[in-house]
Amino acid sequence: MLFALLMLPGVGFAYYFESGDEMSLVSAIVVTFIVGLLLFFSFSKQDQNIRKREGYLIVSTSWILMSMFGMLPYLFSGTFTSFSDAIFETISGLTTTGATVLTDIEVTPKGILFWRSMTQWIGGLGIIVLTVAIFPLLGIGGIELFVAESPGPTSDKLHPRIRETAKRLWYVYLGLTITAGLLYFIGGMTFYDAVNHALTTMATGGFSTKNASMAYYTSPFIQYTAILFMFLAGTNFTVIYFGLTGKFERVWKSDEFKAYATVILVFAILLSFPIFHYSDQNYEKAFRDTLFQVVSLITTTGYVTADYTSYHIGLTLVFFMLLFFGGSAGSTSGGIKFVRHLTFVKNSWLEFKRIVHPRAVVPLKINGDRVTGKIITHIMNFLLIYLMIFVLGSIVMALMGYDILTSFGAVATCLGNVGPAIGKVGPMDNFSFFSGPAKIFLSFLMLLGRLELFTILILFTPYFWRAN
Amino acid sequence: MLFALLMLPGVGFAYYFESGDEMSLVSAIVVTFIVGLLLFFSFSKQDQNIRKREGYLIVSTSWILMSMFGMLPYLFSGTFTSFSDAIFETISGLTTTGATVLTDIEVTPKGILFWRSMTQWIGGLGIIVLTVAIFPLLGIGGIELFVAESPGPTSDKLHPRIRETAKRLWYVYLGLTITAGLLYFIGGMTFYDAVNHALTTMATGGFSTKNASMAYYTSPFIQYTAILFMFLAGTNFTVIYFGLTGKFERVWKSDEFKAYATVILVFAILLSFPIFHYSDQNYEKAFRDTLFQVVSLITTTGYVTADYTSYHIGLTLVFFMLLFFGGSAGSTSGGIKFVRHLTFVKNSWLEFKRIVHPRAVVPLKINGDRVTGKIITHIMNFLLIYLMIFVLGSIVMALMGYDILTSFGAVATCLGNVGPAIGKVGPMDNFSFFSGPAKIFLSFLMLLGRLELFTILILFTPYFWRAN
Repeated sequence: MLFALLMLPGVGFAYYFESGDEMSLVSAIVVTFIVGLLLFFSFSKQDQNIRKREGYLIVSTSWILMSMFGMLPYLFSGTFTSFSDAIFETISGLTTTGATVLTDIEVTPKGILFWRSMTQWIGGLGIIVLTVAIFPLLGIGGIELFVAESPGPTSDKLHPRIRETAKRLWYVYLGLTITAGLLYFIGGMTFYDAVNHALTTMATGGFSTKNASMAYYTSPFIQYTAILFMFLAGTNFTVIYFGLTGKFERVWKSDEFKAYATVILVFAILLSFPIFHYSDQNYEKAFRDTLFQVVSLITTTGYVTADYTSYHIGLTLVFFMLLFFGGSAGSTSGGIKFVRHLTFVKNSWLEFKRIVHPRAVVPLKINGDRVTGKIITHIMNFLLIYLMIFVLGSIVMALMGYDILTSFGAVATCLGNVGPAIGKVGPMDNFSFFSGPAKIFLSFLMLLGRLELFTILILFTPYFWRAN
Repeated sequence: MLFALLMLPGVGFAYYFESGDEMSLVSAIVVTFIVGLLLFFSFSKQDQNIRKREGYLIVSTSWILMSMFGMLPYLFSGTFTSFSDAIFETISGLTTTGATVLTDIEVTPKGILFWRSMTQWIGGLGIIVLTVAIFPLLGIGGIELFVAESPGPTSDKLHPRIRETAKRLWYVYLGLTITAGLLYFIGGMTFYDAVNHALTTMATGGFSTKNASMAYYTSPFIQYTAILFMFLAGTNFTVIYFGLTGKFERVWKSDEFKAYATVILVFAILLSFPIFHYSDQNYEKAFRDTLFQVVSLITTTGYVTADYTSYHIGLTLVFFMLLFFGGSAGSTSGGIKFVRHLTFVKNSWLEFKRIVHPRAVVPLKINGDRVTGKIITHIMNFLLIYLMIFVLGSIVMALMGYDILTSFGAVATCLGNVGPAIGKVGPMDNFSFFSGPAKIFLSFLMLLGRLELFTILILFTPYFWRAN
């Protein structure tokens, strides 16, 4: 029912722009609301004690249900006539991926387009709840300990703190969305475009209302605004909260934030020189292009202002690698995320120490706290499963007949919830040419990545079915 | 000095075939022997107590020294005129990789060609010593526990058992080499070709004396012989020893052997149907081709009888994936090796159990023995570093201007010590077109992979330089 209500603003835009899609949105709202009402009355008298294994199922099915109803406006308005197109676009929205099968975005009715942006913002909201409140209870991800300021045991007693953390992150999310919108508007976007881009920036989604994505806005002010807010959207919101409340020493205590900021800066600076060399523009523009693309890919947003596959094959591969970064834990960013990379890199370094001093106890510390062996194992296992899914997914795509670069690119960008990739799904392309089954498969990968792999994969293990 | 003596048989073949390369071999022998003699007298009176950190340096430099002297026959005979070609071919031999920069193998003088095969057999010998005796002392690899029959603590007290294990593995290695040679000879190879191929089969090297590699020998008997002995060369030699001495229950207790045999069979059967479909031949030949290529790539041998990149892009990607397998620990096989994959796969499965039952102790068992968390962490860290080197290596190659598939292929096959790959280094190609720097870089990767990464990487950490 809440989901239906979030479709309402789109109706307003449809009326205002006379884009003729208000009835399809209203129909979708009615259907969604009624089904919601029926489900509410059917299940409200059920036992409210949710067991852990039901939790995995609820999370997975709720995202699938949201996708099913979220695609109704597309189908009712005729924006998409096929199920696979509609489900792809909806899941791409809700998972904040931003890959699109729209071949001409600008002719799409304004109400529908707003709903498209809204799906990303809803996805961002959803992922905050999951990260803070649900995943820790379900034992998913192993990174929840790095989200809140003071990691502690994940037990039911955490409830008050969880509620506080979730509220705090939501305020940050909402506040930054409004600020981004205002700055976009001041920078020269129309009110409609400013709202849409604010929603998809803070969700690290990357849906744009323009075919050329952010390249449409040549204003440096708008582009730097986008860079800043993509960066913030990929930052742990708790860290942002500390920054806003003046607790800078807490910001600086976050190893993940330091790594995240440093890596972005280093890549932007290092890549800006060859890009300046290969592109025919001044250095400021080359640096801006580089920084924009680096931030966009690392935060898994997916806006583009330049074709990063047009410079040199080696640089293309570097940008492709950025699809495997992801922003920070506790942000709306998808993908692997820095805290996992940090765990891997720091632990690798310590492995050498352990080899030389086999009897010494060499603990790994992040944010000043010791990380247990169990969590290290879990995180490295996550990384390996992530890469295995990437490889197997690419093979599936290649077996469907797509070339290797397109297969690699599409799978990496969908699994990482980024948006653009390489090959035939480069920054200037869209996903419309894929077959129906390929679109469904890629949608599944987006969901798999967004739900931190384990939430969905566990449904395929006997441990889920046998658990009490 | 020993290394010089191993060059001697080549002189015999050079005389017999009157191939005119005997003097270049003799010169190489003289130079190598004299330098060896000088080194022997210079260092024989030094302190014989080798400290751990010296160990890493000795292993790395001894392989580099062997490469320096091993390339002398190539340079003296004029087979190669450039340093990078000669070093690439020598390191490809000593690391049992099998990638070649020879554009026409069959015109190369017989003595030199024999030396080329011999470098692989020496490499195989070397890797057995390293695995059994050196790596456990240096703490490298983390897989030594799975090699010998009864894993125990790696302490200096193991000496008698180490010597026994090493001897046993050498007997297996030598015995199988002779048997393979005899069967090749019976199958119709000339004595010279039989010896050469026996040496490179058991080393999982893959150098051939024919331009067409094993495809030259159309005899099913020879091809099945090659399949069998590649399979054996990729099996833990301790397991083979148990098999030969009738202790089959010990063979069956090896989880790695079971996984290795099963995976090869499953891939061969599954892939044989599409390959039968895409290639214009009877099923037996299609199955033989499939089995041959699967065994050749998984064991990191690198012989070819069919172009596995000619069927379908999806199948090419599957064969590419096989470059990341590697045979068993305790064999001459390079690459990741099954025991590491097994650790990853089994632990992944258990992670799901750990998520559902967070308070339970869920131990990982391999070969019936519990694997400690420390080793699990180490092995998964190895896998991730391996993949990271693959990615960074590919970027280096792409920055040198090679296309993405060729970069991926060359790096994967060199790091995994396989030989053929995809792109411009497919099964029908050679590595001669790469630039000098690219050849040196790929040689470095071969060495890095062969020495289980850590042996070389540790030299770049402060822990090595500070250790006592």
